[in-house]
Amino acid sequence: MTNMQAHPFDTATTLTYENELFYGKTSHHYANMIGPFGGIIAATILQSVLMHPKREGEPLSLTINFAAAVKDGNFAIKTTNSRTNRTTQHWFVELIQNETVMVTATVICASRRDTWSRTEVKMPITPSPEEVKSFKANNMPAWVNAYDLKMMSGAPLAMMEVEEPHSETIQWMQDYPKRAIDFLSLTAMCDAFFPRIYVRREELVAIGTVSMTVYFHAREQTLATYGKEPILGHTRALRFYDGFYDQTAELWGRNGELFATTTQMVYYKK
Amino acid sequence: MTNMQAHPFDTATTLTYENELFYGKTSHHYANMIGPFGGIIAATILQSVLMHPKREGEPLSLTINFAAAVKDGNFAIKTTNSRTNRTTQHWFVELIQNETVMVTATVICASRRDTWSRTEVKMPITPSPEEVKSFKANNMPAWVNAYDLKMMSGAPLAMMEVEEPHSETIQWMQDYPKRAIDFLSLTAMCDAFFPRIYVRREELVAIGTVSMTVYFHAREQTLATYGKEPILGHTRALRFYDGFYDQTAELWGRNGELFATTTQMVYYKK
Repeated sequence: MTNMQAHPFDTATTLTYENELFYGKTSHHYANMIGPFGGIIAATILQSVLMHPKREGEPLSLTINFAAAVKDGNFAIKTTNSRTNRTTQHWFVELIQNETVMVTATVICASRRDTWSRTEVKMPITPSPEEVKSFKANNMPAWVNAYDLKMMSGAPLAMMEVEEPHSETIQWMQDYPKRAIDFLSLTAMCDAFFPRIYVRREELVAIGTVSMTVYFHAREQTLATYGKEPILGHTRALRFYDGFYDQTAELWGRNGELFATTTQMVYYKK
Repeated sequence: MTNMQAHPFDTATTLTYENELFYGKTSHHYANMIGPFGGIIAATILQSVLMHPKREGEPLSLTINFAAAVKDGNFAIKTTNSRTNRTTQHWFVELIQNETVMVTATVICASRRDTWSRTEVKMPITPSPEEVKSFKANNMPAWVNAYDLKMMSGAPLAMMEVEEPHSETIQWMQDYPKRAIDFLSLTAMCDAFFPRIYVRREELVAIGTVSMTVYFHAREQTLATYGKEPILGHTRALRFYDGFYDQTAELWGRNGELFATTTQMVYYKK
């Protein structure tokens, strides 16, 4: 008899549905400096929509706003269908702890049809993931160990010497242990970059994502056949300014298909 | 005695506040093919937050979801404060017509402080706005005439011959008649590009923005001193795929300061 143990990602995004609310709890596998890794919360928000009995279509876009630092422990999620159209479906989602709103989000699902299609940007040319060494995480928050990250440029500046620092990173990324990709893990990977300010500056200042948006450019069936292969992430900041900076990224399948684009606004202390 | 007439943009974004709801109406100056120009609705959503008696801080980010095509005429806006922190304030906004939700949005306001700051991307080098001819709008929706647009690359393909079509546009843009820039007009300008698919393809298929996100990278005082100068917009699509494409853009002050970044997801019929 085989005892199948759930993947830590699946455990972390497990929800139960009762009286029109979803219930879950944070996982130590995805702990960040303070509270949980934002990517796992974003995936959990999306999970509530995907599990909702009225959900139609596949994820198209998600915006999550971190109104407060989610606390370790239990939480409830209120997932409201704002509107259902023929092609798109709109959701408003709130994550609640101790009767206060910690996170708000909007999610759009959509029905895709075969149409004229073009990709207007090329995947960066990089070594294959087999040729790149895994990033060694020492004294890092737990979530870093939940990924196999292989940076080809733009590691945190405190770890390496760079003559001309920039805010751009290109990395292969994969769940650790390996797990077949789906919309949930793709969402979490949109946040699985080190904060741009640590790549650009040596000083480790306090930071926190305030809002993150993900656009899904792949169909469910594409992700379902992609399996446990790594994803190429390419990210940069455009402006650090008076307490807030952006982080913009593309996530690619290794076959050159653009799976997702994402952007986030991040608070930094000084 | 001078009879000051309100600028059409100010009229279009005028709201009254009564019983915890905002009330407004659409303006024919900002009409689109069907219903109003999305940018003016986004500005009106932001207006409701800026006018709210509990608002603290300056706009930091906005995500607007077009759940249905807003109808010409009156509308109500419900603007809910999800959470107020020391540095950030979170809002959920719904635009309502005939008791149904047409638009949802989340807005974050923030207090900025002087910190280490860097801009990581350079403004494109272009001719000055004085050197570029204004775009002539014939048989265009009204909103196009509410702007003075000066395209240096990437006009709609049906209007010009291009050997290798791409989805990128660089344009100067300004309210017409001129109006001093503020967060409201900057928000609207984030949507004042022709749809990328019309730049990339000659065929005019039905389209509609589903979701748009704006990040504000400038302070109120910066915009207040900028005045009636034009804004440089630089936009592109990354992927057109099975009924939806993205449009990503930067908006620059002519002095080289990055004022806003924005991205949207757009439905297209075929």
